[in-house]
Amino acid sequence: MRILTLALLVLGLCRGQGTDECRPSALNIPGAQYPCVYPDHRATFRVVAPDAQKVQVKVGQAFDLVKGQDGVWTVTTTPLVVGFHYYSVVVDGVTVADPSTRTFFGSGWDNSGIEIPEGPDADYYLPKDVPHGQVSQRWYYSKVTGKWRRCYVYTPPDYETGKTRYPVLYLLHGWGENEQGWHTQGHADLILDNLIAEKKAKPMIIVMDNLNAAKPGEDARIFSARWLWPAPAPGSSAPRFGLANFTGATFTEMMLADLIPMIEKTYRVLPGREHRAMAGLSMGGMQTFLTTLANLDKFTYIGGFSGSTGGRGGPFDAKTSNNGVFADAEAFNKKVKVLFLGIGSMEGPNTRNFSEALTKAGIHNIYFESPGTAHEWLTWRRCLYDFAPRLWR
Amino acid sequence: MRILTLALLVLGLCRGQGTDECRPSALNIPGAQYPCVYPDHRATFRVVAPDAQKVQVKVGQAFDLVKGQDGVWTVTTTPLVVGFHYYSVVVDGVTVADPSTRTFFGSGWDNSGIEIPEGPDADYYLPKDVPHGQVSQRWYYSKVTGKWRRCYVYTPPDYETGKTRYPVLYLLHGWGENEQGWHTQGHADLILDNLIAEKKAKPMIIVMDNLNAAKPGEDARIFSARWLWPAPAPGSSAPRFGLANFTGATFTEMMLADLIPMIEKTYRVLPGREHRAMAGLSMGGMQTFLTTLANLDKFTYIGGFSGSTGGRGGPFDAKTSNNGVFADAEAFNKKVKVLFLGIGSMEGPNTRNFSEALTKAGIHNIYFESPGTAHEWLTWRRCLYDFAPRLWR
Repeated sequence: MRILTLALLVLGLCRGQGTDECRPSALNIPGAQYPCVYPDHRATFRVVAPDAQKVQVKVGQAFDLVKGQDGVWTVTTTPLVVGFHYYSVVVDGVTVADPSTRTFFGSGWDNSGIEIPEGPDADYYLPKDVPHGQVSQRWYYSKVTGKWRRCYVYTPPDYETGKTRYPVLYLLHGWGENEQGWHTQGHADLILDNLIAEKKAKPMIIVMDNLNAAKPGEDARIFSARWLWPAPAPGSSAPRFGLANFTGATFTEMMLADLIPMIEKTYRVLPGREHRAMAGLSMGGMQTFLTTLANLDKFTYIGGFSGSTGGRGGPFDAKTSNNGVFADAEAFNKKVKVLFLGIGSMEGPNTRNFSEALTKAGIHNIYFESPGTAHEWLTWRRCLYDFAPRLWR
Repeated sequence: MRILTLALLVLGLCRGQGTDECRPSALNIPGAQYPCVYPDHRATFRVVAPDAQKVQVKVGQAFDLVKGQDGVWTVTTTPLVVGFHYYSVVVDGVTVADPSTRTFFGSGWDNSGIEIPEGPDADYYLPKDVPHGQVSQRWYYSKVTGKWRRCYVYTPPDYETGKTRYPVLYLLHGWGENEQGWHTQGHADLILDNLIAEKKAKPMIIVMDNLNAAKPGEDARIFSARWLWPAPAPGSSAPRFGLANFTGATFTEMMLADLIPMIEKTYRVLPGREHRAMAGLSMGGMQTFLTTLANLDKFTYIGGFSGSTGGRGGPFDAKTSNNGVFADAEAFNKKVKVLFLGIGSMEGPNTRNFSEALTKAGIHNIYFESPGTAHEWLTWRRCLYDFAPRLWR
């Protein structure tokens, strides 16, 4: 996918901006002219469906396509929010991916993606002529889940040739996504390549694992595509699609027992909590808080991108929330060098409120708000771009 | 994708065979019960489409689904060929991917995949408790195409910890696929992990690049999804969708000028033609023959999997075909240690005929036929499994 994306993105940059042409989205399959994006962020979608009765595109909201005499359905949307959007096409009531884009694993299935460019200045997640790190897939067997698991590991540009040991950031995706999200939708590798080249961030290893972790017999359906699941058995106590029952306990156990030891055995890693960070987006942020706040002896840097413990389990109470980990602010501030709370400006006040409550309780924390973005990948790219430079200082 | 595949494949193996239950395909998204596969290789497909007029599944041939009272359309196919099949769903005339499977890049777009298991004995491409190599994405800039390119590089299990230098196999996908094909659809990494663990193959580096290579202004449309291309301009001399105009010249130039030097600079590689092999499937096999036969000073091992120069450019003539490279059999046999021609038994006689013509002309070659398989990935997995152990002997 990426090579096509990059080629088109680079092409886009070289072309210069400011024209009113509708440019193919950077995420289209090779040769596909649609969907295309206008400079004012409207997008035109096109579906060839001579025999269909109704065709819609769902990109945030639903847009009805109009059938032309040639059987080609089209619609031009209102201006879309900048950044990466999952979207789908609905053909006579059936929700499917648009065959003209590459697919991206979100909401538990491979749906379509469209990229609304931020503009020529926002090149922090684009490939530049700088040293590039690598993303490698790493297989490991988890004793806790009894299954083979895959994570992706970013190693910085000079990893292979050097002898240096590096600190490690464990970085999690969100609900319905997987270990591929951070380097395909998020461009985490390119963001770090660029930050490291500008000496804004220290070289580090980034471990992108899959937050799905279930022991044999455990039900993990909360992670899967809702409409495809068989109805749960009557009286089943299996967790439903909400996150109410989400404790993150199995992932935490797996991470501490299987993932971290494998990583520290396999890579040139700096040992100890001072060199270990964890962050995640949305549900991955919740998992990050659940894991790290219960194990402050193992983590020094904590990041929640559009996801934290804020607003869960009733109103925040410094004395009792998260088993009282915030009760002794001084002790907490000594242990946690960075507590980062990021959010898109269009996502509501919960995270800001949580940050202010923490501050009021004397807990040092960083509140980062991404202007004009929603609960989507551009918010999380910006969060990583702001969070990574704060690590290992 | 793979972690799900593996989990389910392993699960499938553990469950034991011989029951008559319809098991979810190993390539389904998490939780999806359909498509499922019966032990006799029939598959049941299911699409929820209350408002659709007609729903088909195209897996090799087209099967009409039947609508139930609940608006759920289903069909159980006749027994399918073993192995990996791309397939698509047609909803009221619109060809799309089935949202219930992971998608796989083939024919220029992300369509669905279903895996018909070979049976409990065929575990050569499944994960086992053996040392695992890594697949890493590698970015490089091509001066020839003027674009950033991505390849995937398999390094054997002991690569990171050791100091050994390794020979290199350059391995290409087929028409409409990309550099992801060999490790997602093909499981090249697991095949090599298993062969190396059994000491059947020598440890090697495998470079999986993208055979799409066009210079600025060159038209690469032969590689893209046909129905999505705009009609070519009247009188356009651009190559059309066939391979008639395919010369592979730009890829060969890019490979020699950009790819091989980058690989040999970046990895611990054994230099020289004795340690360089090239193979590919279908169009990638054609590219392999076009590249290697014109550069025998650079390659010692050649593999065509369901693709070679056989049957192209008129009848084979040892004296003149491929610029007479076969004219001096003795000289050719001295240079080329392995000339491998693989094919599925259901693909017709062209490759066997080509092999026999070469043999008649005194050219040593290996003809490998995969029993009961078509122009699909199981044929190519088996080709790699047979080809890799012949290298570097």
